Amino acid sequence: MRPFKLAAKENKDKNTIIEINTPGSRVYIGEGYCTIIAGPCAVENRDDYIKLAKFLKSAGVHMLRGGLFKPRTSPYSFRGLGREGLDIMVEARDITGLPLITEIMDVRDLDILYDSIDVFQVGSRNMQNFTLLDELGKIDKPVLLKRGLSATIEEWLLAAEYILKGGNEKVILCERGIRTFEPYTRNTLDIGAVALVKHLSHLPVLVDPSHATGKWELVTPVAKAAIAAGADGVMVEVHQDPDRALSDGKQSLNMDNFLRMMKELQKLATIENKKIDRD
Amino acid sequence: MRPFKLAAKENKDKNTIIEINTPGSRVYIGEGYCTIIAGPCAVENRDDYIKLAKFLKSAGVHMLRGGLFKPRTSPYSFRGLGREGLDIMVEARDITGLPLITEIMDVRDLDILYDSIDVFQVGSRNMQNFTLLDELGKIDKPVLLKRGLSATIEEWLLAAEYILKGGNEKVILCERGIRTFEPYTRNTLDIGAVALVKHLSHLPVLVDPSHATGKWELVTPVAKAAIAAGADGVMVEVHQDPDRALSDGKQSLNMDNFLRMMKELQKLATIENKKIDRD
Amino acid sequence: MRPFKLAAKENKDKNTIIEINTPGSRVYIGEGYCTIIAGPCAVENRDDYIKLAKFLKSAGVHMLRGGLFKPRTSPYSFRGLGREGLDIMVEARDITGLPLITEIMDVRDLDILYDSIDVFQVGSRNMQNFTLLDELGKIDKPVLLKRGLSATIEEWLLAAEYILKGGNEKVILCERGIRTFEPYTRNTLDIGAVALVKHLSHLPVLVDPSHATGKWELVTPVAKAAIAAGADGVMVEVHQDPDRALSDGKQSLNMDNFLRMMKELQKLATIENKKIDRD
Amino acid sequence: MRPFKLAAKENKDKNTIIEINTPGSRVYIGEGYCTIIAGPCAVENRDDYIKLAKFLKSAGVHMLRGGLFKPRTSPYSFRGLGREGLDIMVEARDITGLPLITEIMDVRDLDILYDSIDVFQVGSRNMQNFTLLDELGKIDKPVLLKRGLSATIEEWLLAAEYILKGGNEKVILCERGIRTFEPYTRNTLDIGAVALVKHLSHLPVLVDPSHATGKWELVTPVAKAAIAAGADGVMVEVHQDPDRALSDGKQSLNMDNFLRMMKELQKLATIENKKIDRD
Repeated sequence: MRPFKLAAKENKDKNTIIEINTPGSRVYIGEGYCTIIAGPCAVENRDDYIKLAKFLKSAGVHMLRGGLFKPRTSPYSFRGLGREGLDIMVEARDITGLPLITEIMDVRDLDILYDSIDVFQVGSRNMQNFTLLDELGKIDKPVLLKRGLSATIEEWLLAAEYILKGGNEKVILCERGIRTFEPYTRNTLDIGAVALVKHLSHLPVLVDPSHATGKWELVTPVAKAAIAAGADGVMVEVHQDPDRALSDGKQSLNMDNFLRMMKELQKLATIENKKIDRD
Repeated sequence: MRPFKLAAKENKDKNTIIEINTPGSRVYIGEGYCTIIAGPCAVENRDDYIKLAKFLKSAGVHMLRGGLFKPRTSPYSFRGLGREGLDIMVEARDITGLPLITEIMDVRDLDILYDSIDVFQVGSRNMQNFTLLDELGKIDKPVLLKRGLSATIEEWLLAAEYILKGGNEKVILCERGIRTFEPYTRNTLDIGAVALVKHLSHLPVLVDPSHATGKWELVTPVAKAAIAAGADGVMVEVHQDPDRALSDGKQSLNMDNFLRMMKELQKLATIENKKIDRD
Repeated sequence: MRPFKLAAKENKDKNTIIEINTPGSRVYIGEGYCTIIAGPCAVENRDDYIKLAKFLKSAGVHMLRGGLFKPRTSPYSFRGLGREGLDIMVEARDITGLPLITEIMDVRDLDILYDSIDVFQVGSRNMQNFTLLDELGKIDKPVLLKRGLSATIEEWLLAAEYILKGGNEKVILCERGIRTFEPYTRNTLDIGAVALVKHLSHLPVLVDPSHATGKWELVTPVAKAAIAAGADGVMVEVHQDPDRALSDGKQSLNMDNFLRMMKELQKLATIENKKIDRD
Repeated sequence: MRPFKLAAKENKDKNTIIEINTPGSRVYIGEGYCTIIAGPCAVENRDDYIKLAKFLKSAGVHMLRGGLFKPRTSPYSFRGLGREGLDIMVEARDITGLPLITEIMDVRDLDILYDSIDVFQVGSRNMQNFTLLDELGKIDKPVLLKRGLSATIEEWLLAAEYILKGGNEKVILCERGIRTFEPYTRNTLDIGAVALVKHLSHLPVLVDPSHATGKWELVTPVAKAAIAAGADGVMVEVHQDPDRALSDGKQSLNMDNFLRMMKELQKLATIENKKIDRD
């Protein structure tokens, strides 16, 4: 017997499909959809973010990502614009109609972010921040739960269980690579875990090929692999000028490469019978 | 500077395509092809193997696998039929025309196997058996080199370099999952490594989704992921009656599931412009 | 150049020795001392905790541990007595004079715990909870920072750097095992990391052999190894009746085995010129 | 039930102690002894090896190591002197009386080495070279079996089982670090495995702190940790001039540091009641 209950497939009559509505769009995540979330690692300044958001809208993206409060290994690295960046993201949503996702690290930020953010992301370092999971179990907004760097599949689903048990049924899982001995890639995407979690759970599963590989050249093949293995979408990092990004430049697609990836995913979504076009 | 030379993409003007000829067929492995190798983990008896071989031929497979000398963790496990099984495999080739691949563990077996076997497999436990690699560098038959359980991509390509340096240019790489902390799957398929090795090297890359996952339910999604990420084919375990297999039953597809996988791979090969149909 | 600065040995003229004072005792952690912290995984009830505390005092322990807010993989497990348990720990300190250490998971608990707790422990799951590290950088009490399950030595020292940069110089590092592929032990104690961190940093380093091994039979040999490798002490789990513990029973020493361990560590401390006797 | 039988402690009435005799000395490995094996990574030339051997004899070492056939990750690295080096080792034994240990990679070398070598080492890359294990099961000389880079404790003991099942009872286990995500050290010494294997098996267990850490500064503290955890001895790399070693210079002790390590181990052996002085 698996120790997770509410997250288990056998305890729900059908797979969870999450609907996210903004004045300008309706987005679905789950069975039958291929949802694309894109944006820069961190919101760096207003003009670049707005410009990129418009581009992403035109390229067919469903949701905008952007880091405001960045978890950084070193205290000397750029840690995000914080609240100031939030206004920029909200403006991007007003213009594009696309819903917003950002990472939450501190339970005390929930009040600031709650009315503005459509989906809350729990980063891999916080997958077992049970304090945060407890709070996110009480809200009525979707939570994207990234797998921890060294979390087993069971621990990942039990972290989801914390949120579900609190009463929030809108949990999206996101595989973003695990830590192994391999130094050529930033992490090792566990593609078998994607397929297995689709068997074990009714929850939607996305893949983040940017963090998983750490190399932009690998983002498109790995994103394709994710969809072929059954993932319900991908979340990728895009930047106008990756060489000048304040963080994660090496793993960010530029606009041209992003468009190429979208074309590839569209072909794949077609043979997999997943809807990738926005309503 | 990477330490491998002969295996490096920049040192060869085009990607290596390996041709394998038998009286009954011509098989290619490399760029533009989606090659399917299938068969049981171990050759267990004549009738079952011949019957399975005929089925696999009809299902569109390009090459037959079959274990004769099995590396087993415990000395108390079934270790293969050895030389007796070789005659069975040869008979299967005579009937189907399909080339044969089997694992070689001992340099002293090379004489016995040489005339009968079309491709020699080096298993993951022997990836750094340099004695064996040196010998395989001297022969004129293709070698499929599986990645070691905890081998880095660099070590894997350097193991290939041993064979190439000996003068044998027919090296096929095969990713089969690495060892990580995750207990739900037997190994963790490193899908990013597949994409990366296609960038770094001119050598063909196959994927073994059976050993990578250890669970038959995951074989098809992971095989699809492999092709989507750029692999040149897959090698899978198939058994008439997986529940009664002497080894690796849990990861073997039965015939029905194998046919389903083939259909999925055919759709994928089409959009990827890879030839999957036999000549 | 290593990316940590305040934690680096070369940036401080001598190794950090941390002094912890209570009305009843003065405890030192660092160079020249072999500090023993002991107690149950979780505070379960008043009578057992007080009785165990008295025993540990008589056995020569320097500090009492006790879990109040327990990070648990599953939301269905016992999560600690919380604030109720705090009164029990305070009573134990009043009786024994020994300082108290407990884990803090939530920045919002700092107010509740601050006046009662002598050392704050950051658990391995929270090693990169930067929100928590930032807050602990502002206080004037020692922080014991456990290494994350899959944290590199560099990431661990950078997590310490967060606290140091905030102004709190009283950081104690604690190696507690990393996650590897080995299933026979709960984690793999990285003994080389203990020796290396003593070279790289001026901060004290303790070892937790209970979590590192998950098996009480291994606690004593691994605790001895830690001191032999240069650790400044150990933190171990002790329980009156490990078979009936609400958590971590298998890795808890009973009283008899704890006394045996103390004897072994005393011999070792003598040849290593580390003071293990309490003032 | 554990799958190993002949290696299991409960299947033997007392712990195995292995005796190695040469004309000049009698060496024991097992319970109650602290056996020191030392020498350079590879035999590089006669004069240096003989000089080092004399030094090691005077320093109290029990056995001489020296690589003849070196397993090297890259085919372009120095692969050892082979048969030519053997004569040098034999001369060193004639002079010092100390028994010899060297790695065997190829079953075909057994004839060449058999009469000259006292203990055969199976390297970590060959721990599951079952062909080699089978052959070593038939001989009447001790075999030192290194744990594979990513071998579980169970797989390691099952590899020993291959040799034992063949009829050779003289198996010595050697932990030399496993592969993990940590890049600051070459490998991660699994100190818990040392303690656990002493519980599970009657076989002697040595530790190789040189390969485990890859840094000479860590060799002494990790060697001490090994003895404190219950290991029956250590095998270390020593070189007259580590900066000019053809292989593994960074992890080799120079003569002065080796003498310092010996002093530390002598103190430790005394309190652990292990005989470290040569007869």
